[in-house]
Amino acid sequence: MDDRALLATVRSVIGDGAVEDDCAVVSCGDRCLVLTTDMLHETTDFPRDMTDWQRGWMAAAVSLSDIASMGAEPVVLLLAAGLDDPARLAGITRGAADCCARHGGRLAGGDIDRHDELTLVSTALGWCDPRHLVRRRGARPGDLVCVTGVPGRAEAGLLGHGCHRLALLEPQPRVAEGRRLGLAGISAMMDLSDGLALSLYDLAAVNGVGFAISGDALPRPGGVPEPGATALALYGGGDFELLFCCPPSVYPVPGVACTVIGTVTAEPGRVTIDGAAIERRGYEHRW
Amino acid sequence: MDDRALLATVRSVIGDGAVEDDCAVVSCGDRCLVLTTDMLHETTDFPRDMTDWQRGWMAAAVSLSDIASMGAEPVVLLLAAGLDDPARLAGITRGAADCCARHGGRLAGGDIDRHDELTLVSTALGWCDPRHLVRRRGARPGDLVCVTGVPGRAEAGLLGHGCHRLALLEPQPRVAEGRRLGLAGISAMMDLSDGLALSLYDLAAVNGVGFAISGDALPRPGGVPEPGATALALYGGGDFELLFCCPPSVYPVPGVACTVIGTVTAEPGRVTIDGAAIERRGYEHRW
Repeated sequence: MDDRALLATVRSVIGDGAVEDDCAVVSCGDRCLVLTTDMLHETTDFPRDMTDWQRGWMAAAVSLSDIASMGAEPVVLLLAAGLDDPARLAGITRGAADCCARHGGRLAGGDIDRHDELTLVSTALGWCDPRHLVRRRGARPGDLVCVTGVPGRAEAGLLGHGCHRLALLEPQPRVAEGRRLGLAGISAMMDLSDGLALSLYDLAAVNGVGFAISGDALPRPGGVPEPGATALALYGGGDFELLFCCPPSVYPVPGVACTVIGTVTAEPGRVTIDGAAIERRGYEHRW
Repeated sequence: MDDRALLATVRSVIGDGAVEDDCAVVSCGDRCLVLTTDMLHETTDFPRDMTDWQRGWMAAAVSLSDIASMGAEPVVLLLAAGLDDPARLAGITRGAADCCARHGGRLAGGDIDRHDELTLVSTALGWCDPRHLVRRRGARPGDLVCVTGVPGRAEAGLLGHGCHRLALLEPQPRVAEGRRLGLAGISAMMDLSDGLALSLYDLAAVNGVGFAISGDALPRPGGVPEPGATALALYGGGDFELLFCCPPSVYPVPGVACTVIGTVTAEPGRVTIDGAAIERRGYEHRW
C-alpha cells in the first residue's frame, strides 16, 4: 500500500474533492483561506546531520510551500513538536520563526509533547484573493508545463553532492513565486515534494490530461553525471519547487525564475519524456 | 522541567502575547480567525482500550475544545496521522469526521505518515465576530468563576469508575456552550484539559488576579468517595470542560449548563478553596 492508496480511505470518509489540493480551501468574506498541515519525523524526514535550527526551518518550509502552491500569502504558522529532548525546542522554534521571517507568515504558537522520536507537525494558514487562487485542477491541453528551480537537487544533496547540500538542508519555499504566478493567471499548480514524476502523474490524473516533457529542456542538478542527473530530476524527492501549467500567453511571468519543460497534452494519464513513458515513481512512504 | 517552563522558550523566540490563549488569533476583514493545533500520542494520551474511532474523535475534540474556549465557531479541521498500521486510518478518520459532524467544522484533509507509535495531530480553524471573541485575559475582581460540566470525570473514568468511562473515551467539546458564552459577553475563558487547578493558576497569572473557590459549590464526579472526589475535581486531567469568568450581571447564560464555583479576587496568584491554597498541580508532561 502507498500514500495514494491510503488517501482513497480518507476520501471515502470526507469526500473526493476535499483532498485534491495541497491545502484545504475555505471562503471567508472576500478572501480565500488556505490551510495545510504536514508531519515530519526524525528518522524518515530529516537528514541525519541537520541542525535543530534546520529541522525547524524545514518543518515551516514544508507548509509554506503548500501555501505557495495555491498562490496564497502565508499568514500564520503553528508548530506542534513531539520532543525526545526539551533542549532541542529552542533551535527548532528559532528555525521555524526564521523561515517565516524570510518567506512569510508569523509563527504564532503550537503544541509541545514528549516523544521518543522527534516529530514536528507544522500547520500554515494563508489567504488570497479568490480570483488569484490556483488549484491543481485547471490545466488544459496546449498549456505549457513549467518548474521553478532545478528538480532533483535535494536528493543529489542527500547522495553527497556537496553543492546541492543546502538545497536539501535549508529548502526555500517558493512563496513569492507562487503569489506572482497566481496573480499572472496560471492554470494549475502544486509543489514538488514527492518528486517531479509523481507530481506530473498526480496533476495528469486530476486534470484528465497528459504531459509531454522535453529532455533537452529539463533542468538537472549540476555536477552529477548522466543518466543519474536525469533520474534525479525526474524521481528525486524533497525539493520545494513549484510545478505549474499556464497558457502560452501568460509566459514568462515577471519575477519568476522558471523553466518550460514541456506541454500539456490531451492524452489522459500519459506522461512522457521525449516520447517515452516516465516511470510512475518517486518519494512515497511504504506500508 | 514542565510544559510551562518550555513555553518560556517558545515565548523568547516568538513573543510573549503569542502563546497566551488556547488559539492563535488573526484578524480577517470583519472576522477573527482562530487557529489551534494539538499533538496526541498512543502511549501518553490515549487510554489503552480506546477504539480507533474514539482516538480519531478525541483528536478532533481536543482542537474543537480550543476553538470553543475562544467563543468561536469551528470551520475546518485537518488531521495529520503518524500511523503504525495503515489499517487504522479508516476508523480514526471516521471518528474525527463524526466529532466534527456533531460539534462543528468540516474534516477537510491532513497528512499521512508512518510512525512506530500512533501520533495524531489535529488542527482546527475557527472564526467569530471580533466583538464576541473571548480570551484568557479579561477577568476582573468581583467576576464569577464558572465551569461547565463536572471536572474530574475523565480521570475518574481512567481510574475505573465505569459511569465516567464515556467522559474519558468520547469527550464532548463544549462548542455550542462556548459560542453562547462569547455572545453573552463573558470576560475570560479557557478549556480545562490539564485540570481545574492548573487552569485556575494559568488564568490567575494572565489576569493578575486570584480565585476563591467554594468547596460546597464545586461539582465532583459522582460515585467517588471523598476526599478522592474533590481531588479529582481539582487535579484530574483530560476533561474538555470550559472554565470562564463573567460579571455577575451576565450570569446565567441561556442554554449553557454550568456551575458558579467561586469568585475572582484581587489577590494576584492566590487560588484557594474555602480559604486554603489549592496545590498548583495537574496534568503535565515531565521532561
